[in-house]
Amino acid sequence: MKTMFWKENKLFLIDQTRLPDEFTYFECKTYKDVIHAIKTMKVRGAPAIGVAAAFGMALAELAGENLEKTANEIKSTRPTAVNLFWAVDRVTNSNSALEEALKMYGEDVKTNKAIGKNGSVIIDDGDTILTHCNAGALACVEYGTALGVVRAAAEDGKRINVICDETRPLCQGARLSVWEMQQEGIPVRLIVDSSAGYLMQKGEVDKVVIGADRVAKGGVANKIGSLMVALAAKRFNVPFYVAAPKSTFDYENSIYDVEIEERDSREVLYFGDCRVAPEETEVKNPAFDIVPSDIISGIITEDGILKPL
Amino acid sequence: MKTMFWKENKLFLIDQTRLPDEFTYFECKTYKDVIHAIKTMKVRGAPAIGVAAAFGMALAELAGENLEKTANEIKSTRPTAVNLFWAVDRVTNSNSALEEALKMYGEDVKTNKAIGKNGSVIIDDGDTILTHCNAGALACVEYGTALGVVRAAAEDGKRINVICDETRPLCQGARLSVWEMQQEGIPVRLIVDSSAGYLMQKGEVDKVVIGADRVAKGGVANKIGSLMVALAAKRFNVPFYVAAPKSTFDYENSIYDVEIEERDSREVLYFGDCRVAPEETEVKNPAFDIVPSDIISGIITEDGILKPL
Repeated sequence: MKTMFWKENKLFLIDQTRLPDEFTYFECKTYKDVIHAIKTMKVRGAPAIGVAAAFGMALAELAGENLEKTANEIKSTRPTAVNLFWAVDRVTNSNSALEEALKMYGEDVKTNKAIGKNGSVIIDDGDTILTHCNAGALACVEYGTALGVVRAAAEDGKRINVICDETRPLCQGARLSVWEMQQEGIPVRLIVDSSAGYLMQKGEVDKVVIGADRVAKGGVANKIGSLMVALAAKRFNVPFYVAAPKSTFDYENSIYDVEIEERDSREVLYFGDCRVAPEETEVKNPAFDIVPSDIISGIITEDGILKPL
Repeated sequence: MKTMFWKENKLFLIDQTRLPDEFTYFECKTYKDVIHAIKTMKVRGAPAIGVAAAFGMALAELAGENLEKTANEIKSTRPTAVNLFWAVDRVTNSNSALEEALKMYGEDVKTNKAIGKNGSVIIDDGDTILTHCNAGALACVEYGTALGVVRAAAEDGKRINVICDETRPLCQGARLSVWEMQQEGIPVRLIVDSSAGYLMQKGEVDKVVIGADRVAKGGVANKIGSLMVALAAKRFNVPFYVAAPKSTFDYENSIYDVEIEERDSREVLYFGDCRVAPEETEVKNPAFDIVPSDIISGIITEDGILKPL
């Protein structure tokens, strides 16, 4: 399964807002379609956003658009995942946007397989691994980062159980990670986000592996809730790993200077089409939080397991 | 607003599963109706469960039922909140179940007002208070424990902002606490459970006040997710208080020996009528977790602020 593919000068993206009930591809004919897909989270996950953005630049190039203007527009879709900026800059500095995008597309799979191989080392036979949000195939072109580690461990013959946090508000854990593990035949259980601490308290989690939207000085920005999972892991001595490609690393900024995206209140007030609180309720809906470096056991990359910045 | 009242030998309970969209009373003509209401969480919250159980015993007495058998049936509805056992035993040891139930009904309000008064001392003007689940009027006969502290502070003229975690899976925060604060005219914002840590990381929370289902040796059992909120509060030096009547105290057992109720998977798979993961998905749905004593700043009771057991 590929999260996206390029065909006849168009980009096709799995519409992740419709999973797991419908498996359909969203067709991007223009870079504006790609912008729409990123903003509405039809495509999400730092590595996938990066590659989709690169193809957005390719679509703009093919249409003869002003590439500098397009680059700025694409960069302004979402502020936190650094891969978006990395990918657009890389394409901008290349001779051909399409060639570069296709190159990045191919690299993504290789990178994730290397992350998986490096990560499998820390996984023991029989481990129960808790993950938050979806850092799976659907967050990349394929295979995944955190779930890539799970896949690699399973391919190495280790018996793994996975626990997925549902990951409110958009439930990428319940909708995407559970679905990926079910497709893969890896035993998986679903919990609400606030159960993670209790399962660690009971000794039912051996390791935590999550993805990253940005690795910078002082910590890692990742899906809202990652911080609370990490604090529980620290308290109950559960190793806490982040799996992310080097393209997610930002060596220049403090993680505390990174803009944390605030998203629409509707995501919290509703659950699918079901409303849970009065429409006029005031909401705070930050999309990410920051896991401080001192509570991260290691960052699993394509180059090995690194210390946090 | 009263969460329950006794009229013409029947118990009327606000059906909390229908709030905030519908405000209706569920009529209990028999103790079996009370059992149904407790199991389905039409009535919930440790103090409210206790008083409802006492009225259940009164209904059984009026109908000439075997009270020992009824007591056992009522006690087996939910295992974690100790008030249920406390209330049934108290009624069993009295001369008249109805008189005792009515006495407990009256005491509940006085107790909560005393908790509020004692708790208001730790609240400063301008504080933002985060609460989890609903330890409000709806969890008691009226006024509330954790939200009783908020009400008392507001009555003392302090300007308070409240942040409510939605409290998956049944969203008592989003549906009940937000609604109570809106009715009261106290500024309130709603967040997903996993945002609590981030808001503390940003310094946007001054105090946490939650309720309790049981206070015992070593800690407090409360709604799932309380533990993760407490760990975040510890990390970011936010005072973390539990507000609970002495009827919630269990002096005999270790909190780690208390049975933690596991509830139906449907609560996690669905959100109202909206399904979020494939029907056949395996789920773990513990209803409570344990906040260890060492990360609790104090327990606000009708007798003052106490150290955890």
